[in-house]
Amino acid sequence: MNGRPLVIGVAGGSGSGKTTVVRRICGGVAPATVSVLHHDAYYREFSGLSREERDRINFDHPESLETELLVRHLDTLLDGGTIQMPVYDFTDHTRALETVRVEPTAVIVVDGILVLAEPELRQRMDIRVFVDADPDVRFIRRLDRDITRRGRTVESVIEQYRSTVRPMHLDFVEPSKRWADIIIPKGGHNEVAVDMIVTKMHAILSEAGALR
Amino acid sequence: MNGRPLVIGVAGGSGSGKTTVVRRICGGVAPATVSVLHHDAYYREFSGLSREERDRINFDHPESLETELLVRHLDTLLDGGTIQMPVYDFTDHTRALETVRVEPTAVIVVDGILVLAEPELRQRMDIRVFVDADPDVRFIRRLDRDITRRGRTVESVIEQYRSTVRPMHLDFVEPSKRWADIIIPKGGHNEVAVDMIVTKMHAILSEAGALR
Repeated sequence: MNGRPLVIGVAGGSGSGKTTVVRRICGGVAPATVSVLHHDAYYREFSGLSREERDRINFDHPESLETELLVRHLDTLLDGGTIQMPVYDFTDHTRALETVRVEPTAVIVVDGILVLAEPELRQRMDIRVFVDADPDVRFIRRLDRDITRRGRTVESVIEQYRSTVRPMHLDFVEPSKRWADIIIPKGGHNEVAVDMIVTKMHAILSEAGALR
Repeated sequence: MNGRPLVIGVAGGSGSGKTTVVRRICGGVAPATVSVLHHDAYYREFSGLSREERDRINFDHPESLETELLVRHLDTLLDGGTIQMPVYDFTDHTRALETVRVEPTAVIVVDGILVLAEPELRQRMDIRVFVDADPDVRFIRRLDRDITRRGRTVESVIEQYRSTVRPMHLDFVEPSKRWADIIIPKGGHNEVAVDMIVTKMHAILSEAGALR
């Protein structure tokens, strides 16, 4: 690889369509040119806690994530090294034994609800994207996902939303919008905005002869 | 010209940095490939009114603009025709005798605080941009501009801001943000966002062999 990789940060609240945007950004270029670092792969280990203590963990608070490790991994990739991204096991709140090998690529996407809230992360980004959607739309998407794909009850989704998701969104996610270079409304189905980011990636990749 | 021109709408409140964004977008491509239609060149004629009546005109309300003429002009350009854009004389609130000839170009920028608030305009746009800035920053910019460049008093700027600019912003400009494909925060000094729009324009222009 010649030159420093392009780092694109993609933040946005739970249910904003962030994941769809990341998938579409990555789908717009050759797989070998882009890698994705998921902030939520870097949750801290909470395996020593009792069941009751674990239920009280606030997974929407920045402190629950080992951001310093993600920063080190990002720096390693930026220096041309390879990293082992953790795999988080959400059932017992611990890191799985396996890891995911991530090679240095021309484009590195860093995604997560809080990636713009962390100064150490955002200062390493070339393009800071915030995916936005109305709060009711975000809640409905989260409700739908948690019921359909995670077998949760309506009551438990509402309880978690009220107790941690919403307050942390207001405290950390929403204020971090201020650091965005572009804000993408209409969540993941915003063809124009995604296309604009992909076009920019193509321009940079072709400038550098496919590998910047 | 082959193919339909690319229409970029740029909206945003007074003092948001909209004009700077438009200038920089246009500066990023060859002058012959882009033209700008200013919504505020299409203010209606208020020459028949008394001085007192004119002072009460709400220039921030959509009704004060002849949007239907701008739409017709845009359609003419889209059909490959040439238009005569009005020149508005803000001292006696009437259209000047001269007009500005605008040729059909590969890119047409439509700019104004209310361009996303008008369905007839926004449905003709390929890229809808909303330039955003905090309300206090916008007010300070407007104050500075009106005092320095228009010789206004602080009191008159505040009075106009309170009586029409702010209420119309809340009623029409702010809600129109909903229609944006991308929102550009940090007004006119957002290099990353402007660069992304310019890159997209280049891609479209080169795809079509300089003229789409």
